[in-house]
Amino acid sequence: MQIPELDFSISTLGECRIPSPMTNGHTISDRDHVLYHNHLEKIEEHLRAGQSPPFFEKAGPREKIYFDPSKLKCGIVTCGGLCPGLNDVIRAIVMSLYHHYGVRTIFGFRYGYEGLSPRHGHTPVELTPGLVAGIHDQGGTILGSSRGPQEVPEMVDTLERMNVGILFAIGGDGTLRGAQAISEEIGKRGLKIAVIGVPKTIDNDISCLQRSFGFETAVTEAGTAITSAHTEALGARNGVGLVKLMGRESGFIAAYAALAYNDVNFCLVPEIPFTLEGFLDALEKRLERKGHAVIVVGEGAGQDLMQGTQERDASGNVRFGDIGVFLRDRIIAHYRGLGKDMTLKYIDPSYIIRSVPANAHDSAFCLLLGHNAVHAGMSGRTNMVVGDWGGEFTHVPIPMAVSRRKKIDPGGRLWSIVLASTGQPAVM
Amino acid sequence: MQIPELDFSISTLGECRIPSPMTNGHTISDRDHVLYHNHLEKIEEHLRAGQSPPFFEKAGPREKIYFDPSKLKCGIVTCGGLCPGLNDVIRAIVMSLYHHYGVRTIFGFRYGYEGLSPRHGHTPVELTPGLVAGIHDQGGTILGSSRGPQEVPEMVDTLERMNVGILFAIGGDGTLRGAQAISEEIGKRGLKIAVIGVPKTIDNDISCLQRSFGFETAVTEAGTAITSAHTEALGARNGVGLVKLMGRESGFIAAYAALAYNDVNFCLVPEIPFTLEGFLDALEKRLERKGHAVIVVGEGAGQDLMQGTQERDASGNVRFGDIGVFLRDRIIAHYRGLGKDMTLKYIDPSYIIRSVPANAHDSAFCLLLGHNAVHAGMSGRTNMVVGDWGGEFTHVPIPMAVSRRKKIDPGGRLWSIVLASTGQPAVM
Amino acid sequence: MQIPELDFSISTLGECRIPSPMTNGHTISDRDHVLYHNHLEKIEEHLRAGQSPPFFEKAGPREKIYFDPSKLKCGIVTCGGLCPGLNDVIRAIVMSLYHHYGVRTIFGFRYGYEGLSPRHGHTPVELTPGLVAGIHDQGGTILGSSRGPQEVPEMVDTLERMNVGILFAIGGDGTLRGAQAISEEIGKRGLKIAVIGVPKTIDNDISCLQRSFGFETAVTEAGTAITSAHTEALGARNGVGLVKLMGRESGFIAAYAALAYNDVNFCLVPEIPFTLEGFLDALEKRLERKGHAVIVVGEGAGQDLMQGTQERDASGNVRFGDIGVFLRDRIIAHYRGLGKDMTLKYIDPSYIIRSVPANAHDSAFCLLLGHNAVHAGMSGRTNMVVGDWGGEFTHVPIPMAVSRRKKIDPGGRLWSIVLASTGQPAVM
Amino acid sequence: MQIPELDFSISTLGECRIPSPMTNGHTISDRDHVLYHNHLEKIEEHLRAGQSPPFFEKAGPREKIYFDPSKLKCGIVTCGGLCPGLNDVIRAIVMSLYHHYGVRTIFGFRYGYEGLSPRHGHTPVELTPGLVAGIHDQGGTILGSSRGPQEVPEMVDTLERMNVGILFAIGGDGTLRGAQAISEEIGKRGLKIAVIGVPKTIDNDISCLQRSFGFETAVTEAGTAITSAHTEALGARNGVGLVKLMGRESGFIAAYAALAYNDVNFCLVPEIPFTLEGFLDALEKRLERKGHAVIVVGEGAGQDLMQGTQERDASGNVRFGDIGVFLRDRIIAHYRGLGKDMTLKYIDPSYIIRSVPANAHDSAFCLLLGHNAVHAGMSGRTNMVVGDWGGEFTHVPIPMAVSRRKKIDPGGRLWSIVLASTGQPAVM
Repeated sequence: MQIPELDFSISTLGECRIPSPMTNGHTISDRDHVLYHNHLEKIEEHLRAGQSPPFFEKAGPREKIYFDPSKLKCGIVTCGGLCPGLNDVIRAIVMSLYHHYGVRTIFGFRYGYEGLSPRHGHTPVELTPGLVAGIHDQGGTILGSSRGPQEVPEMVDTLERMNVGILFAIGGDGTLRGAQAISEEIGKRGLKIAVIGVPKTIDNDISCLQRSFGFETAVTEAGTAITSAHTEALGARNGVGLVKLMGRESGFIAAYAALAYNDVNFCLVPEIPFTLEGFLDALEKRLERKGHAVIVVGEGAGQDLMQGTQERDASGNVRFGDIGVFLRDRIIAHYRGLGKDMTLKYIDPSYIIRSVPANAHDSAFCLLLGHNAVHAGMSGRTNMVVGDWGGEFTHVPIPMAVSRRKKIDPGGRLWSIVLASTGQPAVM
Repeated sequence: MQIPELDFSISTLGECRIPSPMTNGHTISDRDHVLYHNHLEKIEEHLRAGQSPPFFEKAGPREKIYFDPSKLKCGIVTCGGLCPGLNDVIRAIVMSLYHHYGVRTIFGFRYGYEGLSPRHGHTPVELTPGLVAGIHDQGGTILGSSRGPQEVPEMVDTLERMNVGILFAIGGDGTLRGAQAISEEIGKRGLKIAVIGVPKTIDNDISCLQRSFGFETAVTEAGTAITSAHTEALGARNGVGLVKLMGRESGFIAAYAALAYNDVNFCLVPEIPFTLEGFLDALEKRLERKGHAVIVVGEGAGQDLMQGTQERDASGNVRFGDIGVFLRDRIIAHYRGLGKDMTLKYIDPSYIIRSVPANAHDSAFCLLLGHNAVHAGMSGRTNMVVGDWGGEFTHVPIPMAVSRRKKIDPGGRLWSIVLASTGQPAVM
Repeated sequence: MQIPELDFSISTLGECRIPSPMTNGHTISDRDHVLYHNHLEKIEEHLRAGQSPPFFEKAGPREKIYFDPSKLKCGIVTCGGLCPGLNDVIRAIVMSLYHHYGVRTIFGFRYGYEGLSPRHGHTPVELTPGLVAGIHDQGGTILGSSRGPQEVPEMVDTLERMNVGILFAIGGDGTLRGAQAISEEIGKRGLKIAVIGVPKTIDNDISCLQRSFGFETAVTEAGTAITSAHTEALGARNGVGLVKLMGRESGFIAAYAALAYNDVNFCLVPEIPFTLEGFLDALEKRLERKGHAVIVVGEGAGQDLMQGTQERDASGNVRFGDIGVFLRDRIIAHYRGLGKDMTLKYIDPSYIIRSVPANAHDSAFCLLLGHNAVHAGMSGRTNMVVGDWGGEFTHVPIPMAVSRRKKIDPGGRLWSIVLASTGQPAVM
Repeated sequence: MQIPELDFSISTLGECRIPSPMTNGHTISDRDHVLYHNHLEKIEEHLRAGQSPPFFEKAGPREKIYFDPSKLKCGIVTCGGLCPGLNDVIRAIVMSLYHHYGVRTIFGFRYGYEGLSPRHGHTPVELTPGLVAGIHDQGGTILGSSRGPQEVPEMVDTLERMNVGILFAIGGDGTLRGAQAISEEIGKRGLKIAVIGVPKTIDNDISCLQRSFGFETAVTEAGTAITSAHTEALGARNGVGLVKLMGRESGFIAAYAALAYNDVNFCLVPEIPFTLEGFLDALEKRLERKGHAVIVVGEGAGQDLMQGTQERDASGNVRFGDIGVFLRDRIIAHYRGLGKDMTLKYIDPSYIIRSVPANAHDSAFCLLLGHNAVHAGMSGRTNMVVGDWGGEFTHVPIPMAVSRRKKIDPGGRLWSIVLASTGQPAVM
C-alpha cells in the first residue's frame, strides 16, 4: 500500500481570523483541491479502501488570513545556482505583499542563507515596489546567492530578532531541506513564523511539480548552442558538435532540447546508462553514414564511466566528473587511434543558459508562483512549497517535495520520442 | 444534470488488427484515460448517480492499428489564419507517418479546403521527410491556407479518388466543423477514411484544450510591441501607447501579455464590457497621475461601442469593427476636445505575431501533437481532435471541441490578477 | 566653382588655455583633418587654383580646453522622433563630462526644446553617472522629446539663468536649425555658451555624415516585418505582403532593407518616381509568375500620387499622405476590379523599429559620437555637429550639415544593386 | 621613404574587350580610385616628391570585361574557421555571376583547399541560384571548410582540368597566401585564370581593410556572453565573470565588445602586455571596491605568461596556450591562497559567436563584397582581394593585404577609450 506515502496535508500556524484586504473578489476555499490521480481506477482503489484519494490543497487567496498585514515583516532569500525567473519571483512576492496585502516591510537577505547568518555580516536590503519594478528584465538574482547550509539556530535567531513573520525561500532541493530545518526549529521554539518555499530547479526534477520555472527558458536558450554545434559539424568533414547541458540527476533539459531542436543525433542523459564503446561505435556509424553528428549530453550522464572523486560542493552535491570534457577527449583519442580525420567542437553554454532573463511564459508563471506563495504565507501555512499539478497551483509539504526526484522513465513516452527523434540506438 | 453533455467517446472505423510497426516499446492501452474533473466531489457525484465520471481517452501509440501502412495514403490540409507552429505540426505528422509507421504517400493539399476542391485546380504536393526536414524554422505554412468552406461532397470525392485513408485537418473552429461535415459524409458513403483534427487557435479559446499551439509564442512576440508602446509613451508628455492584439472572442493573449509584460496599464478584452466614457475617464486619471499610459486591446473587445457592419469574412466570421483604430481616434478626439496635449502611438503587430516560427516550447508541443494525431489516425479513430488536459494528450470528439469557446471568467482568478497587475479599475 | 560652398571651418568661443584633465595620453591636434575628397583629381583641382582642398576638422580630445570643468554646467536636450541610440548618446555625454573632465552639473532638459522654454514648466533632471549607467538597455530617450521650435530668446534666457556653458542638442534637421538659431542669439548677446549638435536621423539623410546612429538598428529591425510579410504572402494564393518603412525624403532604410532581406520584390523610395499604373502592372506580372510578392515602401515615396493636404506637423514637416494605406487600398481595389483573388497583408512597423535599443554596433558608435561631442564642446567649439567621414569622426558646421539632404542617386551604384536584388523594373 | 611599400597596382590577365552584359547602367572607370591618405600633408609629400600619392583602384562593374560569360566556368572555395557571412558571400557571388553576367557553371569546392586537391576525393557541388537562395539564413558555410594548404600544382591542375576561369577564395591570411601561390603557379603556366580573394577575418585584423565581414555580428554576439558573465558576477559575493573572445593577433573584438557592453571591467588584448601579478592586483582592488568584476580576454592575450608549446595547427598557426583556462585557474588559485571567497564563472562562447548567421548590416556588406569580387574577376583582375577603405570598395593586391596585420595601437584613440570605459589601469 503506497497511500501513507502520499500525505499532502499542510501545516499551519493557527486559525485565520483576519479578513483579507484583497478586494477583487475571487477567493479559494480550503476545501478546493486538485486530485493527485487522473485515472479512475486509482481513485476507486482508495475509495474501496475507505480512504480519501490523495489530493493537493489548491493555492490562492483566502477570505481570511492569519497575519495582520499592518504589523507583518517578511523576508526573501534566494539560494543555489542561477535560474531564469528568480527576479520575477522576487518581484511578484514583493508586489503581492505590498499591493495585495499592504505589507510595508520586506527584507531581502543577501547571498542565500549566508544573509540570515550574522557571522557573514551581510546587511539585508529593504525591498520596495519601486526597487523591484524593473528587475525581471535582467537575469540572475538581485539578492545574490550562495550554496550550502548555515547554522539553523543562528538563522532562526535572525528571523526572531528582525521580527520576520514569513520567510520566502527560493531554491532547490538543498534550500528546501534548509527551509524545513528552519521551520522545525521555529516549531520547537513555539514561534509564529511561516516558511514558504518556491521550488527552483532548472532541471525540472522536483517531484509533485509538473513544471518548474526557468525550465522552458533553459530549453529555448539551449537551442543557440545546439544550432551552433550543428553549423560547426556541417562545416567540416566528419564534423562533430558536442553540447553539454544542465541535468545532474534528470535529463529533461537535454531531452526536450532534442525534441525542440531536431538537429540532435545523440541525446545522453543520466537516466539512461551507456558504455563508451557502444557510444563510440554508434557515433562512427553515424559519421560514416552522414558525415557529421550533433551530441547533447546532460551533465549527470555517464558518471560511471569516469573515476569520480566523490568531492562535494558547498551545497553538498557530489562534484560530478565533467562528462563534456571527458567525451570530447575520448572521441578525439578514438579517432586519432583510428587514423581518421574528425573535427570536434565542444560547447558548454551552461552559464549563459542559466543567467538569461525568463521568457514571457516563464515570466507569467513566476508571477503566479510568487503571488500564490504570498497567499499561502498570509494564511499561516508553513513548511510548504507552491506546486503545479494538472495546470493548477497547489500547496505541497516540503517533505513530500524533496522526498524523491522526478526522472525520465527509460520505458516511457518521452524517452521513446527522443529515441525516435534523434535516431540513436536504444541501447549503446 | 450536465452529464450527458460531457460524452467524450470517440468514433472509430473498426477493429485494430494489425500489429503496430512502432518498435520502441511504449504503448497506450485503450483503457488509459484522463479524468475531466480534478475535484473529488464532482467525481463522487457521478459515482453516486451510478455513472462513470467523464474522462478523455488518452492519446498515444497503440499496440495494434487499423490501417495497413504499406497501402495507406494520407493527406494534410491547413486552413484559416497563420499561427506559429503550423509547419511544426505538418513536419511532425509527415515524420511520424514515415518513420514510425512506414507510410510512403502523403499528400499536402494546397491553400486550405480549396486544395480538396477540384474546381480550384490546386495540385497537391507530395510530402517527404526530406521536404519537411527544415520547415519548422520558418513561420507560416508551406501548404498555404485559405478561409471558408468548400463543397463537402466534392472534397470527399477527392479523398476517394486519391485513395486517401487519413485526412489530417489543421485549423480552428470553422475548419473543425468542416472536418466534422467531411467525416459525416464519409460515414454516409460507408467509406473507411479517418478524419483527425489538430486544433489551431492562436487565441487559445477552444474548449477541452488547456493549451493550444502557438499561443505562448504569440504572447512572447506581443512583448516587442508592448515594450515599444511603453517606450513611445515615456518619450512624450502625456504619451499613450496603444497595442491591438489578437483575440476575437477570448482575450487570453491580451491578458497573458499583461501579466508577462507589466508595463501594461489597461487591458481590454472581449469578455469584459466597458463604456467609452468609463475608459476615457480612467485614462485621464492615469495620465494626470503618471504622465503616460500603455493600453492593450484584444480585437474583439468593445465591439458594442462601434456600429458594426455585420459583414462576414470567407470563414463566416463576423467582420469586426477595428477597435484599435476606433480607440485611437476617440482618444485623440477626446484630448483635442479637452484642449490638452496628448501623443498617441498605435501599433498593430498582429501579422508579425502570427507569422513568426514557434518558440522551443511550442515547437516541442507541436511535435507531440502531430505524433499523437498520427497515432490516433493509424488506430482508425475519426471525427476527433488531439487535445491537452492536465498535462496529458487526449482524444476529443470534434463536436465536443467546437461546442463552446473557452473564455476569461470575469469573476475568476486570471482576470483578478490582470486587474491587480495593470491597476485598472474593475469597472469602466 | 563649387569651392566656396564647401567651407567646413568651425566657430569657437575663444582660445583654449586650460590643460585638459584627460590623462590617458592620446590627443588630437587642431591641424588633424580628414579630406573631403578621396580622388586625386579633385584635390589637384583645388591645389591648381591655389586653394586648400576642402577638409573636415578631426574630432577628438585636445591638449588644452576652453572651459574650466570645475565651474562648468552643461545641458542636454533630445528632440523629434525616437531613434535607437538616443539613450546611448545621453549616457556617453554624461560619462565623458563626468569622468573625462570632472564636470559635476549636467542638466537634462525634458521633452525637447519645450524643456528650455519656461512656459511649459518642465523641471530639468540632474544627470549623474549612476542615473544613466543602465539607460542604453532601453529604447527611446529618458529625457522625453517633443517636436517643433520654441522661442529662441526664451531658451537662451534659460541657458543664461541656469549658467549653462555647453548645450548638447540631439536631433534632426529641425533641431539643428534650432541649435543654430540658439547659437546665433548667444553670439548676439556676446555670451560664452557652446552649442554642440549630435545629428539624429534614422533615415540616414543628413549630408556630411556617412553614417547616422540608429540607422543600422533600424534596417535590422525592419527585417522582422519583411520576413513576416513574406511568410504571409507565401501563405495565400496571390499573397501580397506590404511593409511601410521610414524614409521621408530619402529611401536608405527601404533600400538597405531590400539588400539585407532578399525576399523583397518591390522597393519604392521617395527618390524614384513611379506611376500607380506602372506599379500595378508590374505587380500583376510578378503575381502571375510567382504567386506572391513582397513590397517595401518608404513613407515619402509616391507622395505625388495622392492629393496631399499640405498640412504640417509641429516640427514644420509637411504631413505626408499615408502611402502604405494608399497602396493597400489601391491594390485591393485593383484586384477587386479584375475579379481575381488576392490577399494583402499590410504591416507598419515604424514605432517598433524606432523604439528598440541600439544594437551593439550602433551602441559603440553612439559612445564615440557622445565622447567627441563632449571633446568639441570642452574645446569651445560651437554651432557644429559631430560628423563621420571616411571612417573618422569630424566636426561639421551646422549650416553645412543642414544645407542639403543625402539622397539615393537614381543613377548610382546603390540603386542599381537594389534593382538587381529585387528584380523590379527600373521604370514603373 | 615608405612609398615603394604602398604599391596598390593590380595584376590583370589582359585587355577587356567584351561589352559587359550588365544593363542597369552604372559603371566604374579604371581611373576611379580611393586615396590611401586622408590628410593633405601626406598627399603633398608625395606630390612634392614627384610621385602619385598611393591610392586603391575602386571596385565595381566595368563597361568592358575580360571573360566571355557564355563560356566561363567559375569556382568558389571557403577555407579556415567559420565566420558569420560566409554563406552570404557565396550566395552573392553565385547570384552576381548568374544574374549580372549570365555565367551558368559555378563549382563549389568542398572543405577548403582540400576540395581542389584530387587526393581527398571531394566532388564539387554545382551552385545555382535556386540552391543558394536561402543559405544566408544559416550560419557556417554550405561548402564546408578545412585548414591548411594543399599542393599548389595539384590545385592548379584541377582548375585547368575543370576549365575554371575565375577562382574565388574566401578565407583569411593563410588562405590568401595560398591564393597568391595558386595565382603565381597559374602565371608560370601562362594560363588565363583569375584568382580573386574575399578576405575573411572575424578578428578584423587584415590590413588595407577598414572593415571585415562578420566582425560586427561577432561583437554583437559577444554581448550575450558578457551579459551572462555580468549576471553571474553580480549573483555571488566577489563574483568574477571571465569571457574569452576571439582575437589571436589583434584584440578588436574584445575592445569593441568592451565599448558596446559597458559591464566589462577588464579588457585584455594581445597588443597590450600585462603581468599576472599586475592583473591580479588590479582585480583584487576592483573586488574590494565593488564586490564583482567582468573580464574579457582575447585569445592571443598574455601568451608570454604561459610556457607555450609552439605546436602549430593545420593552417600553420601557432597553437596558442588557452589564456581563458589559464586565467581562470590562476585567479582561483590566487584567491584560495588568500583564503578569501571568490566565485568565478568562465564562459567561452567562441563557437557560438562564429557560427551564427550574419546580422543585417554584415549581410548587406557581404552582398556588396561578393558582387565586387565578381566584377573584379570578370574584368580579368587577379591575385587581389576586395577591400574597403573610407566607405568605398577597393581592389587590394594580395601581397599588400597579407603584408602586415592591423592591430590596436596602444597609444591610440581606441585603446584610450577602452581604458576610459572599463576603468582598468593603463599598466598592469
